[in-house]
Amino acid sequence: MYAVILAGGVGTRLWPRSRQNSPKQFTDIAGSGRTMIQETVARLEGLVSPEDTYVITGSRYAGLCSTQLDGLPEENVLVEPQGRNTAPAIALACAHLQRRNPEEVVAVLPADHLIEDGAGFRKALQQAEQCAREGYLTVLGIEPTKAHTGYGYIQRKDDRLPSAGDLPAFSVSRFLEKPDQATAEQFLTDGGYYWNGGIFVSRVEGLLAEYERQMPELYKGMNRIAAVLGTSELGGVLAEVWPTMPDISIDYGLMEGAERVAVVPMQVGWNDLGSWDALETVVAQDEGGNYPIEGEILQMNSKGNIVAADRRLVALIDVDDLIVIDAGDALLIGKKESIQHVKQVVEALQAADRTELL
Amino acid sequence: MYAVILAGGVGTRLWPRSRQNSPKQFTDIAGSGRTMIQETVARLEGLVSPEDTYVITGSRYAGLCSTQLDGLPEENVLVEPQGRNTAPAIALACAHLQRRNPEEVVAVLPADHLIEDGAGFRKALQQAEQCAREGYLTVLGIEPTKAHTGYGYIQRKDDRLPSAGDLPAFSVSRFLEKPDQATAEQFLTDGGYYWNGGIFVSRVEGLLAEYERQMPELYKGMNRIAAVLGTSELGGVLAEVWPTMPDISIDYGLMEGAERVAVVPMQVGWNDLGSWDALETVVAQDEGGNYPIEGEILQMNSKGNIVAADRRLVALIDVDDLIVIDAGDALLIGKKESIQHVKQVVEALQAADRTELL
Repeated sequence: MYAVILAGGVGTRLWPRSRQNSPKQFTDIAGSGRTMIQETVARLEGLVSPEDTYVITGSRYAGLCSTQLDGLPEENVLVEPQGRNTAPAIALACAHLQRRNPEEVVAVLPADHLIEDGAGFRKALQQAEQCAREGYLTVLGIEPTKAHTGYGYIQRKDDRLPSAGDLPAFSVSRFLEKPDQATAEQFLTDGGYYWNGGIFVSRVEGLLAEYERQMPELYKGMNRIAAVLGTSELGGVLAEVWPTMPDISIDYGLMEGAERVAVVPMQVGWNDLGSWDALETVVAQDEGGNYPIEGEILQMNSKGNIVAADRRLVALIDVDDLIVIDAGDALLIGKKESIQHVKQVVEALQAADRTELL
Repeated sequence: MYAVILAGGVGTRLWPRSRQNSPKQFTDIAGSGRTMIQETVARLEGLVSPEDTYVITGSRYAGLCSTQLDGLPEENVLVEPQGRNTAPAIALACAHLQRRNPEEVVAVLPADHLIEDGAGFRKALQQAEQCAREGYLTVLGIEPTKAHTGYGYIQRKDDRLPSAGDLPAFSVSRFLEKPDQATAEQFLTDGGYYWNGGIFVSRVEGLLAEYERQMPELYKGMNRIAAVLGTSELGGVLAEVWPTMPDISIDYGLMEGAERVAVVPMQVGWNDLGSWDALETVVAQDEGGNYPIEGEILQMNSKGNIVAADRRLVALIDVDDLIVIDAGDALLIGKKESIQHVKQVVEALQAADRTELL
C-alpha cells in the first residue's frame, strides 16, 4: 500500500503556534514530543514503508518535510507549485503512483489530525485497504461523538459489505455537507452517519478512472505532468499546467459523485485539532481542573483553562475557561468559547503586514 | 539636605516581576525605562547631591544599589545585617549622619514609590525641608483620591504653620491606622486627612532625640554602632547589636508619639504600586481600553486588561479586566479584582521550595 500525506495547509486557526513558516502539521501542538506529520507517518508503521510514503506540500515546506521525516526518500516529497486544493494535490500524487503500480492501493491522509488509538486506526485502515482491493473507493468514517456542525458527514447504506477483514464496512449512500445543529442532532439519533475526516483508500487506477470520468480537464493536466516526470521538462509543464487546475476539494470534485464508495467506521479518538479548544478533548485534565499542554500550571481558584507555555510556570488567579498559548514572540489569551476569533487576529496581523508574527 | 532611601523590601505582591533577587525597587515595574530606585534618586536632583544620598538595604541587594545608582558613593550603601523594620533601618542611617552633621536635615523616602509630578514633589519636599529646619518632624501627606483602606492616615490640625515656603503646612493632630471603609469615607468627606506614604523630613538631631525618648534601647544600640563606624569592629558590633533591635516601624515606634510633627500636603500622582492593579492609575489606557505596560496588545472585544509582556505581542480575545505579567520563566494571569492572591502564589512556591521562581 502507498500512502499520500497532505501537508500543504497553513493552519491559521492554531496561531500563534501554527505559523506560515511552520504550520500546524510541522508543530507539536498537543505536546506529544513529535510533530503532527511525524505522528501521521509513525501511525502507518508496519502498513506502509517509507519508500511507499509520499508527502504533498508547498515549496515553502519541502525542507520541513525532509527534516522532520527521517527515512523518507527526498523524491517522495512532492511540491505543489502553488497551493490549490485537495483534488489537484492528490492528482499530482497519482501522476507519480500510476508510473509505479496503478493496480496498487493508496491511502490518502491529512498530515494534521490526531488519533489516540493508533492500533485501532491501523485495523480500520487495513479493513479499508481490503475494500479498496475489492474495487471500492473507501472512506474511513469517524463515529460522531456529538452533533458537530463543523464537519461533512457520510451516510452509509444498511447492509454490510461482504469484505474479508475484521471490521464491518458499508456502501456509502451519500456525502453530506456541514449540517445545521438540528440536522446534526438528527444524524446522531438516527445513526449510520459518520464524520468525513478526509482519510480514504483506493486503488490508484480507481482514482484515475474517477478523475477521468468526473474531472476530465484535471485528468488531462495530470497526464501531461505524468508524461514528463523525471525529465528536465517537468518544471516548465508544471508552471504551465498547474494554474489551470481547478481549485476543488477531492470530496466535492470526486468523492460525492464516485461510483463504488464504501465506508469503514472507526472510533479511535480522532481529532482534527481545528481550533485550540479542541485540545480539551485531547489533553488530560490535571487535578486542579486545568489542561496543561506544556509548562506548569499553578492555580488559585481557576479551572477549565488550556495552557501551553513551553517550560514556563503559569500562575492563574481566579480565571476560568481561558486558552493561553505562549509562542515566543506572541502570546494568545482568549476565552475558550470565543477562540475561533483567532482568525481575526491573524487577519489583523496580515492587514498590518506583520509577517514576522504570521 | 541628606536623603535616606529605604530599599530593603522584597515586594512579593508584584511577583513575578519582583523577585527575591531583584525586588520591585530594582525593577522597572511601570515601564518607564528606569528602575524605581533610579526614579527615586533622579527625583531628588537639585535638592540632594549623590554624596549626601544614602541607601539602606539588605546585603543581598547592596550590589544592585551600586550597579543601578551610578554616582552614589560606595560607602553610602548601608547594609542591614538582617531585614528588621523601618525604625532600626532609619536608626542605622542616623548613626552615620550624626557623625557628619546632626544639625542638617534628612529626607527619608521609600525606594519603591511612583510619583508622576516630580516638580510638584520637589516643591513639597522643599516645604517640608523648611518646616524641618524650624524643628518639625515633617511628613509629606498624600491628598487622598479615594476612600482607601490600605493606608494609614494623618489628620492635620486646622491652622496653618507660619512656615516660609510656598505651600501650606500644618501641625499633625494624630496618625491613624488603616481605617475600615466607612471611616475612610468619613475621612474623605471631612477633609484634612492624608495618606501616610512614609516620606518625611527632619533634622537628624530631632530624630535622634525622639529615638532616645521613645525607643531608648534602640537608641543605645544605635550609639554602639555609631561608635565603631569606620573601624574593624563594626562587623562584630553589628552582629551583636542588630538582633536585639526591635522589629518596629518608624510610624508605630516614633512618629505616632513624636512631639512636634507637621504635615505638608501634596497632590503629585503618588502611587506605592502596592499590587498589580495599581498600575491602572499609572499607565495610560490605549484606544482599545487596555493598559499596555510593555509589549504590544492586539485585542478583540477585550478591555480593562493590564499587560506587561516585554517585547511580545499579546493577542487578547474576549477577556476583560485581566492582569497579564510576563516575566521570563513565569507568567501571571489573574483577574484584576483577585490579584492580591498573588501572595498565595508566592507562598505556594515557597512551600514547594521553588526558589528559582521566587
